[in-house]
Amino acid sequence: MTESPVTARRPGARSYTTCGELRIGDAGRVVTLKGWVNRRRDHGGLIFLDLRDRYGITQVVANPEHSPDAHAVAERARGEYVLAVTGRVVARPEGTVNLSLPTGEIEVLAERIEILNPSKPLPFPIHEEAEVDESLRLEFRYLDLRRERMQRNLMLRHQVTRFIRQYLDERDFVEVETPMLIKSTPEGARDYVVPSRLFPGHFYALPQSPQQLKQLLMVAGFDRYYQIARCMRDEDLRADRQPEFTQLDLEMSFVDVEDVLLLIEGLYTELFERFSSKPIRQKPFPRLTFAEAMLRYGSDKPDLRFSMEIGDVTDIVTGSQFSVFARAVEEGGVVRGLVAPGLSGASRRQTDELTELARSFGARGLVWLALQQEEGALSARSPVAKFLSGEEIDGIAGRLGGKPGDLVLLVADQASVAANALGRLRSHLGHELGLVDTGVHAFCWVVDPPLFEWDAEAGRWEAMHHPFTAPVDDDLPLLETEPGRVRAKAYDLVADGWELGTGSIRIHRREVQNAIFRIMGYDESEIERRFGHLLRAFEYGAPPHGGMAPGLDRTVMILAGEENIREVIAFPKNQRAQDLMFGAPSPIDEQQLRELHIRVVLPEEEEQG
Amino acid sequence: MTESPVTARRPGARSYTTCGELRIGDAGRVVTLKGWVNRRRDHGGLIFLDLRDRYGITQVVANPEHSPDAHAVAERARGEYVLAVTGRVVARPEGTVNLSLPTGEIEVLAERIEILNPSKPLPFPIHEEAEVDESLRLEFRYLDLRRERMQRNLMLRHQVTRFIRQYLDERDFVEVETPMLIKSTPEGARDYVVPSRLFPGHFYALPQSPQQLKQLLMVAGFDRYYQIARCMRDEDLRADRQPEFTQLDLEMSFVDVEDVLLLIEGLYTELFERFSSKPIRQKPFPRLTFAEAMLRYGSDKPDLRFSMEIGDVTDIVTGSQFSVFARAVEEGGVVRGLVAPGLSGASRRQTDELTELARSFGARGLVWLALQQEEGALSARSPVAKFLSGEEIDGIAGRLGGKPGDLVLLVADQASVAANALGRLRSHLGHELGLVDTGVHAFCWVVDPPLFEWDAEAGRWEAMHHPFTAPVDDDLPLLETEPGRVRAKAYDLVADGWELGTGSIRIHRREVQNAIFRIMGYDESEIERRFGHLLRAFEYGAPPHGGMAPGLDRTVMILAGEENIREVIAFPKNQRAQDLMFGAPSPIDEQQLRELHIRVVLPEEEEQG
Repeated sequence: MTESPVTARRPGARSYTTCGELRIGDAGRVVTLKGWVNRRRDHGGLIFLDLRDRYGITQVVANPEHSPDAHAVAERARGEYVLAVTGRVVARPEGTVNLSLPTGEIEVLAERIEILNPSKPLPFPIHEEAEVDESLRLEFRYLDLRRERMQRNLMLRHQVTRFIRQYLDERDFVEVETPMLIKSTPEGARDYVVPSRLFPGHFYALPQSPQQLKQLLMVAGFDRYYQIARCMRDEDLRADRQPEFTQLDLEMSFVDVEDVLLLIEGLYTELFERFSSKPIRQKPFPRLTFAEAMLRYGSDKPDLRFSMEIGDVTDIVTGSQFSVFARAVEEGGVVRGLVAPGLSGASRRQTDELTELARSFGARGLVWLALQQEEGALSARSPVAKFLSGEEIDGIAGRLGGKPGDLVLLVADQASVAANALGRLRSHLGHELGLVDTGVHAFCWVVDPPLFEWDAEAGRWEAMHHPFTAPVDDDLPLLETEPGRVRAKAYDLVADGWELGTGSIRIHRREVQNAIFRIMGYDESEIERRFGHLLRAFEYGAPPHGGMAPGLDRTVMILAGEENIREVIAFPKNQRAQDLMFGAPSPIDEQQLRELHIRVVLPEEEEQG
Repeated sequence: MTESPVTARRPGARSYTTCGELRIGDAGRVVTLKGWVNRRRDHGGLIFLDLRDRYGITQVVANPEHSPDAHAVAERARGEYVLAVTGRVVARPEGTVNLSLPTGEIEVLAERIEILNPSKPLPFPIHEEAEVDESLRLEFRYLDLRRERMQRNLMLRHQVTRFIRQYLDERDFVEVETPMLIKSTPEGARDYVVPSRLFPGHFYALPQSPQQLKQLLMVAGFDRYYQIARCMRDEDLRADRQPEFTQLDLEMSFVDVEDVLLLIEGLYTELFERFSSKPIRQKPFPRLTFAEAMLRYGSDKPDLRFSMEIGDVTDIVTGSQFSVFARAVEEGGVVRGLVAPGLSGASRRQTDELTELARSFGARGLVWLALQQEEGALSARSPVAKFLSGEEIDGIAGRLGGKPGDLVLLVADQASVAANALGRLRSHLGHELGLVDTGVHAFCWVVDPPLFEWDAEAGRWEAMHHPFTAPVDDDLPLLETEPGRVRAKAYDLVADGWELGTGSIRIHRREVQNAIFRIMGYDESEIERRFGHLLRAFEYGAPPHGGMAPGLDRTVMILAGEENIREVIAFPKNQRAQDLMFGAPSPIDEQQLRELHIRVVLPEEEEQG
């Protein structure tokens, strides 16, 4: 028996057959498969091996009467052994066809089986969705990655990246690699730094993003730049953060906000229509100003997969008998609320829990009104009902769209506190009450955020995005007089309540940049030290420019239906920034330290020092 | 005058016209161009502005009679000012058509000119090929990158990268991003390290290559992986090295040498046929064993754009009257040589220089024979002619292919010394005598190098490639007895005398790996510390695999016809690993150092310490 001739080898052509390609039309061919034993079953004197690779699973049959040798090897094979199997493709006997497998109409009758490599028993099962401790998964990531879910996620990541590149390539974008060893700038998040061997006491920084480099590429005339950019931040990690992450970094010259939004919206629309089974709820993506988003959803990344809007009833309760409302208004605060539909029957325990939640979100308290129909009129069951007039209750219900049977939740506080607490209550209730439509994706743009925020601790204005963000043209006159009211030409893309990325139009005129730095209270030497190279570049014909940097990890995460970016990163770190597989970070040799002109100072020494 | 309507804006469509797209068919249209003033000329009361962007140059005419405003602004415009120009496309007057420019048949009659940003005079000219000091170019890299040559090189790099991706995507390769913060392994080149904030005294390393990670991806079943991978090595820099570089990192499962060679050869053939104007000298690429390459070309990266082969004449001069030859043979050495065609008339000064050169390449000396025809017989003019018999001269000339008029150069030494000295002489003479055909690209594969090399200092065998390289099957029996004779399943791709990349089939069986480590003299704890994670992975069903990692920088450099990889890297470092634009590396704050649990030890303190 000889193998059916392989067509003349083209570069990259395989000398064997993958486990995903055989169909009924291949019956009769003699093939060699290579792959892993996914499962082994002994049945009626035969051994059935499901052979697996990235392309699929093919059933191999070892029949001792057909080939005693092959059967003998099959007897030794265990799960995850790597085999090469040569045999003839045959149609499966009637009744054993498996239509859930693309290869399910055939099997390969083994003539020869070679064990390419054995395997020890695995520390966790990989061909079923078992709950496995994440530390164990990360320590044996090379096994975890064999699981179908991880294979699918990483393939998706590859395809998404390829799609993004193609979309941008078709639009004149040039991918440029920017350096990993750059200059440390003491602002924003913490830099990872790299000691220099040649310059004692000097350090490189790893990029938190190629922000300044892409702006320099615009100065260089590269017009439309992108990069699937590796970024690193030495931050304390939250659930969806990693010390290393990847962003689609892009920048364009001669553009204003609209150009960037159109480009990115086109990309994300195509991307999600191509790679997600769920439709996009609203196209074009709704645009909310930052102020509107905070008012209506209490968040700068509102989840628009459900409505439940927040409403402001400050005007209705001004001068209310209810002192909590009256005082809040007097103190320059607001009274805002939202409606939990159908929740008017909430028990005391439930309302207590909601109140507790609101407090944990920073509110001083929570007022609840269970709306009911009483003798043809609307009334409210509430601990504070007696302090509220019928007009107030009607007014509140009317403003918030509450009906009998609904529960109204109100927060009286400073605007930002009320917005945040209600926004988080909204998110909580949306999931709790099953209002979130998880069968769709809901995008929106959040635009025109404030340019500055007041840093109470430092006693000065800080750039909310970064100090190169351009102010909205109409607000330029406010720069010197009311910096807090100046809006930025910045925008966030939000999907399903996640911030996908942020961007802005940059300042390209030196005098505007100087004004910004003045407001931030920087002196000349500080400006020179931090941004000298960039400002100098801007004096040699910098074009107007702007860009954006959506997160690739999070984009793929949402497309994959995952809740954590670790599930779409091949080799992620854990929450303490450790690589559990390699055991990094780790101590290094004294010799290495000496060459780098540094010495380790352990915490106890630090205390003594 | 209103602008001709722009078609409904598609995502990524421009709201203006680029400087490279207008043709005679556009005459009559009103357009807006945005770009840089490449050149300004005043002529006959008109101002001509060559407006430049990445796409080309368009001539703008400001005529004071047509638009006094536009003319007034044009008067203020200087080189590298950024302008927006609106005007009508008109055919150039007869006699002023410039056929060397794609836009040379038209010009734009300015109606309105806006200065988007002025520019100070540049530190060096960018629209002509001036010799500019490289430090100045690197300091103002954003201006250097405006030069046509650099724009062309970076565009080429983008296109080459895109082509590589497409070639591999079509062949089932998955691009996987591997981490930048990994574990330091004290071997090979020096690691760049990154101190950990959370684990005092612990460090990450930046990858010198994703070697182990890609092998783990094979264990994970990813079958065909690639990555345009960023790599970092803290080495002392040579002319064509950079502390950061990029390689096409790839790995395949279930392959042997032939599969990898076919794949890469197909890629490079298509790549060079697409992006180079020069033909490939020989297809398929010739394959030389390492031994053959060293013997015939004295180099493991032979430049096959010219022949001039080295020949071995040891057998001919064994027992020669000439003691230098006789002694070399007795000491186990060789006598080898090459022919410099037509150089028999070399002066004493020239032959002295060649001898000096050979000495600087490590040879003890150089013997030269100027071949001549004397009374119908071949003879040699040479200081040592009197020691050589006619048969010897005939034999040497015959073996090396020397004819009357040629100069024969001979080195008698240990094989490796003779090979290296003659290889470098060959390269020198090839360029000196104009023998190198710079109109072609000459590729070759160098295969089957030794698995080990003897480290005389450490007194032990070291892996020549890396310790995971598989031995040639036929040589397995030699492993324990004659390790120095074991050949590796490794291969180098060479183009025009440059090593483009290296690769190998890896060991996937634990017992072979153990044998290798034993030969290298590693003890168990050292093996565990250095390679434990990888060896553990190999116990869970590792497939046979191998791969390669051609250098992207060097590939693009050769395609661009450049001599230094800095010319194809957007923001390279200088020879001292400095970024002259940003001023990196640089000192960092005490606070940063404290957080990272390190202290700087300046050289003077080190001495005292």
